[in-house]
Amino acid sequence: MNKLENSISDREKAVFELGIKLGSLFHQFIGTPVSSRTKNSLEKSIEESISNQPFVNSVKVNIEAGKKYNALKPEQIKAKISILYNETRAKGEIEYIEGKDYPLMQIDEVKKVSQN
Amino acid sequence: MNKLENSISDREKAVFELGIKLGSLFHQFIGTPVSSRTKNSLEKSIEESISNQPFVNSVKVNIEAGKKYNALKPEQIKAKISILYNETRAKGEIEYIEGKDYPLMQIDEVKKVSQN
Amino acid sequence: MNKLENSISDREKAVFELGIKLGSLFHQFIGTPVSSRTKNSLEKSIEESISNQPFVNSVKVNIEAGKKYNALKPEQIKAKISILYNETRAKGEIEYIEGKDYPLMQIDEVKKVSQN
Amino acid sequence: MNKLENSISDREKAVFELGIKLGSLFHQFIGTPVSSRTKNSLEKSIEESISNQPFVNSVKVNIEAGKKYNALKPEQIKAKISILYNETRAKGEIEYIEGKDYPLMQIDEVKKVSQN
Repeated sequence: MNKLENSISDREKAVFELGIKLGSLFHQFIGTPVSSRTKNSLEKSIEESISNQPFVNSVKVNIEAGKKYNALKPEQIKAKISILYNETRAKGEIEYIEGKDYPLMQIDEVKKVSQN
Repeated sequence: MNKLENSISDREKAVFELGIKLGSLFHQFIGTPVSSRTKNSLEKSIEESISNQPFVNSVKVNIEAGKKYNALKPEQIKAKISILYNETRAKGEIEYIEGKDYPLMQIDEVKKVSQN
Repeated sequence: MNKLENSISDREKAVFELGIKLGSLFHQFIGTPVSSRTKNSLEKSIEESISNQPFVNSVKVNIEAGKKYNALKPEQIKAKISILYNETRAKGEIEYIEGKDYPLMQIDEVKKVSQN
Repeated sequence: MNKLENSISDREKAVFELGIKLGSLFHQFIGTPVSSRTKNSLEKSIEESISNQPFVNSVKVNIEAGKKYNALKPEQIKAKISILYNETRAKGEIEYIEGKDYPLMQIDEVKKVSQN
């Protein structure tokens, strides 16, 4: 589709896709009303929604919520995403950093895996 | 909290709350990746999320989705919400109208109920 | 479109529409990256976006933001919306309440206006 | 912060950040009420909001909208983002593909630039 694609490595494509999923997850769901009573269904729904996107291997979401509901905040959500692009796996996560008002999205691992 | 509150009827308060929930539901979740494989968890999560908000009696969501995923569109979602404010119940829904690109949000019923 | 419409007063319709706009505004824009450098364009864009919706008379948004950006939080945004439905005007607002993690959406005024 | 960072190249970090911004942009703003009357302020607000995020060099957004408003759809938005990570620039875009219901997010260029 694009001449450049030839010069992008599988590692680069895998981390690009990882970035898309992390940005999507955060900005789609932040603000959702959540409480301890409903956090399980929200976690499951986020995991399944994001796993629809291409090259997603797994998504794991953990939400902290109190009895009283609130609009989901950055500091309440942790997520780990694993991407598989050809034989390269990229893992990353959203981690809230105390004292900053935004979530850090970071790459945890990029490596070649055999798919036997 | 507000002098005016005295002059707002229970019917008015109930339909105001109904409007909030319909607007919230639509704008929070539109764009969520969805497919036939994941629509059930998204329906459940929307129902539970919105039911966290004050005065919500019930929420029922139906999503139409294909095998291939897409970003949730107005024409794929129907929702019915029931509000209970004191003894007044207001029911409403989101209904997509062919040929318009937005969902119609409307009041279906407002009536006094006994809560024995 | 709906038999019931006949029995819904203009005041009720006006506050219903007010609720829709307040819920839409909050859940569409919460989470948007914002800083003191960019808050003006975000305020303007929210005002204009919401004013597209039916029966909106005016929208006024005020955002507090620091030099460092963050994902827009409930406590950073105030908004006032005025609805005009036939000859009835409903005004309302989003106001953050210290100690709660959600914004209070409330009706400020509902009255008949002459439209000469 | 993370041992692995040492083994992630600047090219990989640049495309990861590019992915985050593309995913954020799409999922934050999809669904926003827009018309030809208000598209300019929405374009500007999206550009400025996303440019708050780390490593963003430039953002250019084009929205197609009609006289009647609708909730912003994938097929109405094009965006180009340029990231600068150390001396590596990564450019990418969101492009809607006819017949698919989702936007293609792709890398257009990754190269080392001198920053004299």
